[in-house]
Amino acid sequence: MDIVEIREAVDKAIENYLYEKEPPRLYEAVKYLPFAGGKRLRPIIACLACEAVGSDFTKAIPFAVALELIHTFTLVHDDIMDKDEERRGKPSVHVKFGEDAAILAGDALFAKAFEVASNLREAETAKKILRNLAIMAKEICEGQEMDVSFEEMEYIEENQFLEMIEKKTAKMFEHAAMGGAIIGGGKKEEIEALQKYGLNLGMAFQIWDDCLDVIGKDIGKPVGSDIREGKKTLLYIYAYKRSESKEWLKYYGKEGASDEEVQKIIKFFEEIGAIEYAKKKAREYSKKAIDALEILPESGAKKELIEIAEFAIEREK
Amino acid sequence: MDIVEIREAVDKAIENYLYEKEPPRLYEAVKYLPFAGGKRLRPIIACLACEAVGSDFTKAIPFAVALELIHTFTLVHDDIMDKDEERRGKPSVHVKFGEDAAILAGDALFAKAFEVASNLREAETAKKILRNLAIMAKEICEGQEMDVSFEEMEYIEENQFLEMIEKKTAKMFEHAAMGGAIIGGGKKEEIEALQKYGLNLGMAFQIWDDCLDVIGKDIGKPVGSDIREGKKTLLYIYAYKRSESKEWLKYYGKEGASDEEVQKIIKFFEEIGAIEYAKKKAREYSKKAIDALEILPESGAKKELIEIAEFAIEREK
Repeated sequence: MDIVEIREAVDKAIENYLYEKEPPRLYEAVKYLPFAGGKRLRPIIACLACEAVGSDFTKAIPFAVALELIHTFTLVHDDIMDKDEERRGKPSVHVKFGEDAAILAGDALFAKAFEVASNLREAETAKKILRNLAIMAKEICEGQEMDVSFEEMEYIEENQFLEMIEKKTAKMFEHAAMGGAIIGGGKKEEIEALQKYGLNLGMAFQIWDDCLDVIGKDIGKPVGSDIREGKKTLLYIYAYKRSESKEWLKYYGKEGASDEEVQKIIKFFEEIGAIEYAKKKAREYSKKAIDALEILPESGAKKELIEIAEFAIEREK
Repeated sequence: MDIVEIREAVDKAIENYLYEKEPPRLYEAVKYLPFAGGKRLRPIIACLACEAVGSDFTKAIPFAVALELIHTFTLVHDDIMDKDEERRGKPSVHVKFGEDAAILAGDALFAKAFEVASNLREAETAKKILRNLAIMAKEICEGQEMDVSFEEMEYIEENQFLEMIEKKTAKMFEHAAMGGAIIGGGKKEEIEALQKYGLNLGMAFQIWDDCLDVIGKDIGKPVGSDIREGKKTLLYIYAYKRSESKEWLKYYGKEGASDEEVQKIIKFFEEIGAIEYAKKKAREYSKKAIDALEILPESGAKKELIEIAEFAIEREK
């Protein structure tokens, strides 16, 4: 099954599962982001993992939709905390509907995710998947807390940063691939291989995302958002360690920094080699992800998973 | 097993399940409210329902704890939306830790609830309970949305109000009693009886709670909060329908209303019979709850459940 077909099936399933209409304002806010596009990367990985262990991807659909809803829920709440005003090229939920409505819409998306995942047929599998999703969601909260608390610190170590993005982002990729393999009835070593794939892919994906914040095109939010917010990205950490003068820090995380000031930082990151360093790291993770798949039998799904890991470190948005 | 023993077992289980410590600020905020007291009414009902169908209450503990965590999560987020600054006699979570931390703490409590509930042994039961919890949480969000949207309206019908409190509050009591009976392996008609008990108890409980806002003593928050916030309680709806002059409306939901103005409204509610009407309604629901238990065999747990339904409409806080 190719990615386009999976994406269509996921889109259709999201539409079917999000059938609620009342109260209207709540469900308008709930549906706003899931229907505003998005790559559906996590659901696609779950479905491909299910196929890669020899099963039919449609079995993983409730799980895949649950992942997308949890992903969306975290975006809605994170955007409030991070004061991000744009998402997927549109005003973010709290800008469009107000903060209270955004808090509640996120909660409803979260609840809905577990409802949808409970549609998995086999009880033992459903129980395991629901438990994994809960633990994953908890870890995402932990990652978000680390991310927020890092903003107040001048410097953090690279390993602290890596732990943060592992929890905040990579865990969901890990669970997507692992859960798809579990639902597909994969052997123990296949499940572990896909778990490893997912985790490393997630790391590659997030580090590349941090690069896109400064080099991306048309990424659905203003360039340099991380710089304006003072996010401790890998670029920042590298530049901090390598730079003797800390002059540039006065623009980093500066409220209302001008476009010019943001461009100054980007140029500085380039010159000091921070962007190249982060790209290299992302490539290493992508390679680890691809290597993990070696033990899986050849299949169309495996090929697609490899392509996704390649895409993760090539994309421009 | 009496209520004191159940409460102690629940308290101990909450402590054991909430073992996380890192990141510190997140888990301080997560644990703040669960360890700030509370009646543990929902867990106790779940455990008693489990015993009332002839099982051992300890089987229901993971479910009971999950209910308390979901209850706490809704309090944390609702307090942000409702701008309630006190809870259980202490500053509410968003006052103590800030709004962002409160959003995240609520999310983590929600995730944690599903993790804890997934500790139920038997897979079919666990799957059913997790699904029910998810649907319940969704309905609580719907109830909260109705509650918030009612604040902007001058008048709502009594049946709209009843639908709102059913979703926002009574559903959780319904699920507590029903879920306990499911876990206890109750017969179909026993499960239905306890479901009916829980729903009606929840209605009684919430309507009495609205009364306590004006007549309560030492309720852990300032008297008349609902009046200050312009909440559409049953007292308001009754008074609105019965009063010819709408003079009093100018104090209802008035920002920064003085204690004197709030007292004026309370006195008016008393004189027009609104408080008596609401109390009568609460008593009717409590009676329905007790009547529903008739088909259950006599037991200590059944006796306790009846006492809770009586307590719901007698308590002063």
